[in-house]
Parts: sequence; C-alpha cells; structure tokens
Amino acid sequence: MLPFARVSVIGLGLIGSSILRAVREAMPTVHLTGHDGDAAVRETVRALDLCDDVTDTAGTSVTDADLVILCVPVGAMGEVAESIAADLPPEAIVSDVGSSKAGVAAALASALPNNAVVPAHPVAGTERSGPDAGFAALFHHRWCILTPVPGTPEAAVLRVTEFWKRLGAEVETMEPAHHDKVLAITSHLPHLIAYTIVGTASDLESVTQSEVIKYSAGGFRDFTRIAASDPTMWRDVFLTNKDAVLEMLQRFSEDLTALQRAIRWGDGDALFDLFTRTRAVRRSIIEQGQDDGRPDFGRSDH
Amino acid sequence: MLPFARVSVIGLGLIGSSILRAVREAMPTVHLTGHDGDAAVRETVRALDLCDDVTDTAGTSVTDADLVILCVPVGAMGEVAESIAADLPPEAIVSDVGSSKAGVAAALASALPNNAVVPAHPVAGTERSGPDAGFAALFHHRWCILTPVPGTPEAAVLRVTEFWKRLGAEVETMEPAHHDKVLAITSHLPHLIAYTIVGTASDLESVTQSEVIKYSAGGFRDFTRIAASDPTMWRDVFLTNKDAVLEMLQRFSEDLTALQRAIRWGDGDALFDLFTRTRAVRRSIIEQGQDDGRPDFGRSDH
Repeated sequence: MLPFARVSVIGLGLIGSSILRAVREAMPTVHLTGHDGDAAVRETVRALDLCDDVTDTAGTSVTDADLVILCVPVGAMGEVAESIAADLPPEAIVSDVGSSKAGVAAALASALPNNAVVPAHPVAGTERSGPDAGFAALFHHRWCILTPVPGTPEAAVLRVTEFWKRLGAEVETMEPAHHDKVLAITSHLPHLIAYTIVGTASDLESVTQSEVIKYSAGGFRDFTRIAASDPTMWRDVFLTNKDAVLEMLQRFSEDLTALQRAIRWGDGDALFDLFTRTRAVRRSIIEQGQDDGRPDFGRSDH
Repeated sequence: MLPFARVSVIGLGLIGSSILRAVREAMPTVHLTGHDGDAAVRETVRALDLCDDVTDTAGTSVTDADLVILCVPVGAMGEVAESIAADLPPEAIVSDVGSSKAGVAAALASALPNNAVVPAHPVAGTERSGPDAGFAALFHHRWCILTPVPGTPEAAVLRVTEFWKRLGAEVETMEPAHHDKVLAITSHLPHLIAYTIVGTASDLESVTQSEVIKYSAGGFRDFTRIAASDPTMWRDVFLTNKDAVLEMLQRFSEDLTALQRAIRWGDGDALFDLFTRTRAVRRSIIEQGQDDGRPDFGRSDH
C-alpha cells in the first residue's frame, strides 16, 4: 500500500522538483500538487508537467494533501508553515528537506501545533538550482535522515520512512541536534571552506584570475563546483546551524594551524602521517557506494 | 619533424607511465626507455610493455637519450639528477614534471651544469598512484608550464614545448617563482585543506567515522578524493614550496576568520555576497574546458 495518496510540495527548485519527478516515477498513482513563490518557477513546472496541479498560493496546494513537504530555504520554513496553517487538513503529515534540523523542527512544530511534523533531510543535491536542474534519480542510494521531535506519532515516522524508501533512498532516524553536528562536518564546513578558498583566489594581486582558471585542474576546480551552490540556501544553513558549524570550524582551524607549523618547521613526518591516514576514508566511501570510484571522478572518461 | 628521437623517463608512477603511454600513441617511432627505483614497478611496466627498454639503473636508461624526464617526488629530484650525471650525453635536454619549480630548477641546474635544463609541470593528475594508474589521455587539454632558468637555450625550450603539444597539452612559460605562487593557490592549498578536513573529521568524538562516511554526499566526499593523493609527492610539495604555501594559507585563514565572524554575528548579507561572487569562477572554468560541466561531476549519469 502506498504511504500517501495526495502529496503537496512547496518550493519547486532542485530538490522539490526532483521529489515530484521521483514520485511520478516510483508512485505514479499519487496525486501531486506543487507551489512556488516565484511565478516564473511555477510556469516552468507547468511547462515541464511535473505534477497534477501547480497552485498560485501555498494554501491552495495543501487543502487535500495527506503529505506536505516544504522545500524552501531553511530560513523561510517558519513563515511558509504559517502561510499554510489555515488550509492544512489536521490529518496531514508535514515534512521538509532542510539541511539544518533543530531550528526547522522547532519552527514547524510551533507554526503547526495540530499536525504531525516529521522533519527530514535527504543528503543529496548538485551545485545546480531551479526546477530544470531536478531529476528523479537524485535520491537513489543516498541517505535521508528523519529527525522526529518528542511527541511525533510513530506511525507518521513510518509512513515518511516508507515514502523515502520508495524514492530509492535509505532512511536513518536521529535527534535533530545530532543531525546538525554530523552535517556540520560532512556538508556545512566543506561548503564554507570551498566558498572561502574560491573567494581568496579571486582576491589575489600576485596571481591573475585568468591564471587561477587556467591551472585549476591541479585541485582548485573541485572546490569551485561546491562553491557554485545556491547562495540563499547556504546563507540560511550557516545562520541556522551556527553552533555546530562554529565548533567544527574551530577544530578545523586548529588542525590547519598544526599543519602550517609542520610546513614552516619542515616536519615532513607529520605531513606524511596525516596524508597516509586520510587515504582510508576515501576507500570506505567508495566501498559504501557513497561516491563514484573512478579516478578523478571519471573526468578522463569524457 | 619529431622534437626528440630517444626519450628516457625516470620514475614510472602515474605521471611517468602516462608520458610513456602518450608518447607511444602520439609519436610511435620514438625510442622509449624507463627506469624506476622500485623493482616491482619496473616489473609492472615491463609486463604492461609501456616502453622499449626498462633498465635496472637510472644511468643506463639515459646513455642514448636526447630527452630525459624526471618523474620522481620533488624532494628526490636533486639526488636522481646526480645519479645520471655521469651517463648523460651532453646534448641531452633534461626536464621534469614536479609540482613546485624554484627548488627543482635550482637542484637540476646545480646537479647537471653541462646540460640544458627545462623544468616543466604538466598540471594534470588523478588521486591514483603507480604505473597501473596512468593513461595516454591524461594531458589532453591540460596546461603544461615550462619554467626555464636564465641561460637555457631558446631552442631547448621550443623542443620541449613541441613535445608537450604532441601529447595534447597546451604550453605556457613562466618564471619558477611565479609558477610556485600560482600553483600554491590552484593546487597546493586545496590539497592541504582537503587533507586537513578529512583529518579533522576522523578525529571527532561526537560524530562517528561511520556517520562521516554515510553522509559524505553532502560535500565532504569531494574532499576525500583529493586527500587520497600520493603522500610522498605531497609531503615534498609542501616542504619545497613553503613560502608560497604559507602566504596563501595566511590569506585563506584571514578570509575564513572573517566568515566565522559573519556566522557568529548573523551577518547574512556578508555570506550571501561571497556565495554569489564565487559562482562566476565555476562558469569560467567550464567555459575554458578545464572541467566537466555536468552537475555533480556527472555522478548521477552512472
């Protein structure tokens, strides 16, 4: 039996539009409605025929839904939740896809006290934005983390779990605060660092921008991909997961300072030891199917 | 006319073995000899039949060569150059592929005062090591930077230029010290940061290693690829390009501290401004053919 019959997606960018495509593919009988605050995005989704109905207001999109998924920047979650509160059927389950969870879980619970709220985070994405960038396979073999709050009915968690499994994801449940710590190191800090180094490279006087681009194959180009991610989404992530990001950043800075010292004093053994230790992590990620094992991301195959 | 008739490659890892393969493909009449200090590597190269002759000593490999390319870690360049000095024909041109150039250029010029030395750096590679990891197309559309020292005959530079163009590379010439600054930001600092964050993630108590691996698709996995690069090669790069790396690292740390402050004080505009600015760099890299433009490095195509 399908976990939900009528799904509404609010926010139709990369993630929201990928959910629409994935539901169409995996559960074609589900009735899908969608809304986005941007009229141009709504037009694109209508033209791409990604759902049964694209509504002009958020409220209209949820009136008959049994699952509502908010796919907006985490800083906008509370406001959007308030905007659907009056139209939301009491039996509808509300979920989201935000990259930070403690703040979002609190905002949703506070705005929608009469509904079951199951915050979720599918750990998947690309550097592209908008409804054109989505695709149905985005969640295949990726993890989706659910962070139910105290009082969430177990049945609601199980239905949302089943929903994500049908989209090809693997599902894990954890405390919102723990999620925010884990993602601070596996996602938020990597993005912050990538944005920083691309900024640093852009500001040099002794090396031209043209040189940075020409010789980027030495490693820099990998960072530019991450630093091309959606600015609004990432601003909100850092503002809403401040404590965990600052903690990880502090540890990273200490470790970087230790390496800086090793370079300054010519301590080759310290460098060699770290560089040897880090190889094993890559192997585990490939073994667990969380990345493509081809060298150089398979670039040379093209 | 071919720029060289008899090429010797010393050091048969990823880069050295790729040069052998690329020469075989682009200039099949060139006589190729090779040597590696590791007997197991020599056996592999013989079994793969990558060159006409694999010699057991470095000196034997260069006796008839008109081009010798040293493909060993930059810390070993001086020693290897000394080991071939007695056997090297005076008309042979000596080059290398090291990732830092000022120190290598000085070491080669000092060890081989009677030969034309044309230091080179093909800005290409993968995270893999060893002769099995090489492939002929590695240098296609990549830049190879030549850093001739004062007194290098122009004819020697032109012949090495022609050699790399035949392997599919584009060639640029610059001062060794400027090369080291450019590569410090486009290659060395990115590697240092990737090694650091993978180390930081491995040392956490509040987040398990298993969680780091499971949720790495959020961005971290990109860093692990770079942090799987050859430890000896990279130790030597940092020890030989100390000044430029420390300068770039200092700038990066300042920029990261500014972002840290913006996060702590909730300055969303500062974050948004940087995150918007960095998107353009990615576009330029793709437009200039220095990276694959498919989202997420084309991972979802597999």
